[in-house]
Amino acid sequence: VTSPILLPTQPNRRTFLTGLTGVAATGLAAASLLNRTAYADATPKDADLLVIGPRPGYSPEIGTMVSMLTYMQSALMGFLKGLTQKELDTLFDKNANTIGALALHLAATETYYQMNTFENKKWDSWSDEIKKKWDPAMNLGDAGRKEIKGHDLAYYTDILTSTREKTLAEFKKRDDAWFQNGETEQFGTKVNIHWKWFHVCEHISHHSGQIAFLRKRLPGAKPDAE
Amino acid sequence: VTSPILLPTQPNRRTFLTGLTGVAATGLAAASLLNRTAYADATPKDADLLVIGPRPGYSPEIGTMVSMLTYMQSALMGFLKGLTQKELDTLFDKNANTIGALALHLAATETYYQMNTFENKKWDSWSDEIKKKWDPAMNLGDAGRKEIKGHDLAYYTDILTSTREKTLAEFKKRDDAWFQNGETEQFGTKVNIHWKWFHVCEHISHHSGQIAFLRKRLPGAKPDAE
Repeated sequence: VTSPILLPTQPNRRTFLTGLTGVAATGLAAASLLNRTAYADATPKDADLLVIGPRPGYSPEIGTMVSMLTYMQSALMGFLKGLTQKELDTLFDKNANTIGALALHLAATETYYQMNTFENKKWDSWSDEIKKKWDPAMNLGDAGRKEIKGHDLAYYTDILTSTREKTLAEFKKRDDAWFQNGETEQFGTKVNIHWKWFHVCEHISHHSGQIAFLRKRLPGAKPDAE
Repeated sequence: VTSPILLPTQPNRRTFLTGLTGVAATGLAAASLLNRTAYADATPKDADLLVIGPRPGYSPEIGTMVSMLTYMQSALMGFLKGLTQKELDTLFDKNANTIGALALHLAATETYYQMNTFENKKWDSWSDEIKKKWDPAMNLGDAGRKEIKGHDLAYYTDILTSTREKTLAEFKKRDDAWFQNGETEQFGTKVNIHWKWFHVCEHISHHSGQIAFLRKRLPGAKPDAE
């Protein structure tokens, strides 16, 4: 079940999608990897969810990135939907990261890029307090396995949501000239802010792919094709 | 080893990156999940690899998508780098897809979206010949496990590269008004072509996350944090 978009001609999907709004249904199928029952109401009913482009209140290129980030966050929430604390804490193997840790890693990534791009802070120049709070999620591995556990789904989705709200509030204050800036020298090559936020965006997809893989292998889960 | 960007202050990375060009090194670290020895020359030395924005020969929004697709393809190639035929054919568990099948799935996705957006063909309206060629990769699962095997890495990277060349050639013929078109009704809701190509792009990241997970668990592979 891997078609990346809703196919009205597929009876199995059509049956499943009965009762959903068109947008929610299409968003679900578009994400392409979603368990059919668990995610039925996962996608916000945003009529423009599948329209990438400028958004009111943002400069054109920043608004276009907002539309991408919004789509990816919606897909991520779909992959997380319905997971219990036990499932969020399940370690697939000794080198894996829990789904909870991967979710928090995405919030950590967004937080660190906020400081880097909005506050113009060099990477890793943040305070010890910030590092203590976020580094286990940022670095994953042993620290993540040790420290990130015991939380329910709302803990993770609340952090993801409030992190995104901050991103959007800061984006509203800025313009495309800032966004396209390519004079960042700190990484030793030309990197613009647009790339940094694209990376935050595609990073959500990268780990969503892993979350999709892992949740199909949770005890009692029904595996399917992808 | 999960920092999403090269940190000049991290001695371990700095040591590793000795001898690489700045751009290649940064691209590698940016992809954040790359084995340090296997991928040393994976990233093309494109000075603008980490600059998202317009590209010569394309309308502005299409060129910006080209810069995103180029970055993601470069990251994908990094995740595939050095894999043997046996590794590309390795099935992690009975419900998994091989890394080879996931790579071909990405070429199939791009091919189907080419027909949908460049030829204005409804989803699944393609010829039987096309379906026979691409459906096992598109649908994965049993058909993919049965039919996609016995190929070396060049087989997959050649297909990915030629598929992308076609995408770029078609993009050159079109403009932003076409790209932003939101009048696509076939999926039952408002979907624009920009979203479709963003989805092709983030889908590469989704499955790259799975490929990264799988390659760390190949027989003899050295697992690390992510």
